[in-house]
Amino acid sequence: MPAVRSVDLNADLGESFGHWVLGDDAALVEVISSANVACGFHAGDPATLRRSCELAAARGVAIGAQVSYRDLAGFGRRFIDVAPSDLRDDVRYQLGALQAFARAAGTRVGYLKPHGALYNAVVTHEEQAAAVVAALTGPDAESANLAVLGLPGSALLAAADAAGLRTVPEAFADRRYTGTGELLSRRQEGAVLTDPDAVAEQVRRLVTGQGVVADDGGEVGVAAESICVHGDTPGAVGLARRVRATIEAAGLEIRAFT
Amino acid sequence: MPAVRSVDLNADLGESFGHWVLGDDAALVEVISSANVACGFHAGDPATLRRSCELAAARGVAIGAQVSYRDLAGFGRRFIDVAPSDLRDDVRYQLGALQAFARAAGTRVGYLKPHGALYNAVVTHEEQAAAVVAALTGPDAESANLAVLGLPGSALLAAADAAGLRTVPEAFADRRYTGTGELLSRRQEGAVLTDPDAVAEQVRRLVTGQGVVADDGGEVGVAAESICVHGDTPGAVGLARRVRATIEAAGLEIRAFT
Amino acid sequence: MPAVRSVDLNADLGESFGHWVLGDDAALVEVISSANVACGFHAGDPATLRRSCELAAARGVAIGAQVSYRDLAGFGRRFIDVAPSDLRDDVRYQLGALQAFARAAGTRVGYLKPHGALYNAVVTHEEQAAAVVAALTGPDAESANLAVLGLPGSALLAAADAAGLRTVPEAFADRRYTGTGELLSRRQEGAVLTDPDAVAEQVRRLVTGQGVVADDGGEVGVAAESICVHGDTPGAVGLARRVRATIEAAGLEIRAFT
Amino acid sequence: MPAVRSVDLNADLGESFGHWVLGDDAALVEVISSANVACGFHAGDPATLRRSCELAAARGVAIGAQVSYRDLAGFGRRFIDVAPSDLRDDVRYQLGALQAFARAAGTRVGYLKPHGALYNAVVTHEEQAAAVVAALTGPDAESANLAVLGLPGSALLAAADAAGLRTVPEAFADRRYTGTGELLSRRQEGAVLTDPDAVAEQVRRLVTGQGVVADDGGEVGVAAESICVHGDTPGAVGLARRVRATIEAAGLEIRAFT
Repeated sequence: MPAVRSVDLNADLGESFGHWVLGDDAALVEVISSANVACGFHAGDPATLRRSCELAAARGVAIGAQVSYRDLAGFGRRFIDVAPSDLRDDVRYQLGALQAFARAAGTRVGYLKPHGALYNAVVTHEEQAAAVVAALTGPDAESANLAVLGLPGSALLAAADAAGLRTVPEAFADRRYTGTGELLSRRQEGAVLTDPDAVAEQVRRLVTGQGVVADDGGEVGVAAESICVHGDTPGAVGLARRVRATIEAAGLEIRAFT
Repeated sequence: MPAVRSVDLNADLGESFGHWVLGDDAALVEVISSANVACGFHAGDPATLRRSCELAAARGVAIGAQVSYRDLAGFGRRFIDVAPSDLRDDVRYQLGALQAFARAAGTRVGYLKPHGALYNAVVTHEEQAAAVVAALTGPDAESANLAVLGLPGSALLAAADAAGLRTVPEAFADRRYTGTGELLSRRQEGAVLTDPDAVAEQVRRLVTGQGVVADDGGEVGVAAESICVHGDTPGAVGLARRVRATIEAAGLEIRAFT
Repeated sequence: MPAVRSVDLNADLGESFGHWVLGDDAALVEVISSANVACGFHAGDPATLRRSCELAAARGVAIGAQVSYRDLAGFGRRFIDVAPSDLRDDVRYQLGALQAFARAAGTRVGYLKPHGALYNAVVTHEEQAAAVVAALTGPDAESANLAVLGLPGSALLAAADAAGLRTVPEAFADRRYTGTGELLSRRQEGAVLTDPDAVAEQVRRLVTGQGVVADDGGEVGVAAESICVHGDTPGAVGLARRVRATIEAAGLEIRAFT
Repeated sequence: MPAVRSVDLNADLGESFGHWVLGDDAALVEVISSANVACGFHAGDPATLRRSCELAAARGVAIGAQVSYRDLAGFGRRFIDVAPSDLRDDVRYQLGALQAFARAAGTRVGYLKPHGALYNAVVTHEEQAAAVVAALTGPDAESANLAVLGLPGSALLAAADAAGLRTVPEAFADRRYTGTGELLSRRQEGAVLTDPDAVAEQVRRLVTGQGVVADDGGEVGVAAESICVHGDTPGAVGLARRVRATIEAAGLEIRAFT
């Protein structure tokens, strides 16, 4: 009997800040296997970091450091031309803070995933990609074995791989791909799938090894070990549950990659 | 022959922020045995945390987490009526960030010392004192063995002691004491000693077990395992060197308590 | 025939920040006559200030500067022991920023109302009350004629009155009063009225000059020229509409005091 | 007899923040005719804005709003890909805050000059240049007549000119120019003149209408109505005094352009 295959399901968690609440973390954490926890630079006050780690630890969900540019007012969604050495230190600062809350919750940070504009930048920006990876290397044993979650083919995953780190490519449940397997720009119409049936069908194809239907109508293969869903919009948790059910119906187990 | 006694000499380090420089850290670190490193909430951008840890590690100086209220604009010098649970989480956030830089520099954070208004508050504010200590207790092994540096007789040291943590009482080289051994309020004239000879004489008395001369002219005993000097004013490093020389001339070794 | 009497209805507006949304400003502005617009220190990024002023200007709603301690992480709800001269400057900074957006929207800031912990502090903290008023006095003609909205009997209104400013006492639609006409502390059970009928009845009594029912069961008079409602909780706008309907049913016109 | 010609001399002022001091504002304000006052987004807490306006008003120095990206940690020196509408609102917020302090000091903000990375961006970034100018246009009479100080040939001055605003091109006392009259990139060796005699000679040429000596050894004309000097480095005020003396020795009066 063949072993049950598995895939990871990741989503952002802990993106509230102080009095402002974003998303339904308690519901979302029931659905996913990996939580990208905001670390305070784009979202996430210290109490939210603590609660997020406690939630994840209680549900056996893996914790990732969702590191960002320092930009609360912009929610980390604006490219900042920060010097690589400063970016490396900014990443280490955020990671270290989250690690303390993970330890206090009896667990560990298992991976790192950049947020927002930084995620987009390190697809191609080699200096910033190298800076993010540099925060994980060196004599700090607690950070040295982290996996890096990111876009397949990105400069980030290439730099992480070159540094001997585990890399985990992800696919998006609700993003349209181009015929060459890249994400269709959000500025293009149809870049985000909003029909739950279309999302479910894309996920079914992703996890069963079929190519997804690209914007040109053809099929394109997307190699991914994790599926990313979103949790911060109305109906998002419901859609995440649909994605989970789709994966399970395809016979796969949802399990963290860490 | 009796063993040479030792005393610790502590000062704040890493209180620059971004483009703004405060103090001469490279010179000060040569003088002290323990560095209270700012953690980003009242001062200290991530690059400054890194440099401070690297400086301290290179000189064999112990690293303490100088935690603060979240108040860059006020340099942590204004009391904030923050809820104890939020304060605990704020402390853990700062501590965790610094721990990552200490590990990356090949060393560890060895103790915690509150900064500014928080330092003053936890002399008597029992809820906030307990909150600071709570950040050091629990399942996080990396934080659980930290010492706590503070004012003798403070609520902070009492709470730390009750929690089984090592407590380290400190005396101030340049602060006038009252006849009951408390610090003369900064609002009182003469609260800060500015004459180097007076500072040296107070330090000599402190480390040789003589009572210091109080504001009422009498002598008062101050039990301290560490002497605090300041580094952020013009001439401060020179005064710190004078304090160091005074301690050594009295036959004591300057050695971190950790 | 006697003239129709009028009363003001005020609520907080513009308390979103960046990506985080709080309240339904577009709906709330339809209900009120005066908007207390957050100025960036506890909430309110610049784009939100602009939109708030545009919304208020479009509906003929008066604009007030809802000034706060500098504390985004705490939403301005924590007392900060800021020096009076710094508080005065912090208030002027916030007020000036809002004034620019009001002018750009073709209108003017008409009054000032402190937010959160500052509102509570200046009930009794005379130095901070004087500091807030000091931001409105002096050679700045644009700020010199602002009214001050606050708690009847507060140090703030006393200081404003002494400075020759117009003072506007307010009552709360949903807060229980003590037998001496003070607000029952939020730490007491029953401090906030949640039953819409109870809120409506209290408002009816307030605007018809009847005493409200105090927590001791007796009646107590509350002199107010403005009624404060909240807009940031689920159902808040609905409750605000009920308050408005109650006032109108009592034969009063809802009209800004400016 | 021909009228004495005049030129403006501008420098940054008020770039301290909280406990951190930068530059010697009291000395610098004696030398210049126009002060670019930081508005809080890269530097400048409210008390510093007040003091800067008071200093400038007392010396008859013109006040300009030195607006920036929102980036205290980076001192506004990092490009941020902020949406134009948000940038416009960020500029208005900063300008409005400074205007309040200028009015309180009995004067007015007379012009706007972008700081740091924003200054560099709006040389060529047309959307951001238009956004900065948009903050000065519209129904706000207090902002509508501001002059714009910037680099000759920049997108900013073109946008300001197209909007009917007065534009003031500036030259740098201590920056080397290329043969085509552009600033030599700071990444090139020799980009900044550090020899006081070289600075004085460049200023003498600038104000007497001679071409400056470019990096290729040739002469190139630089049309400027204002000379920019710096005040934030050791010796900077002394160099600024030398520049002032050079201009006066050339027979020109130093006078604000406003």
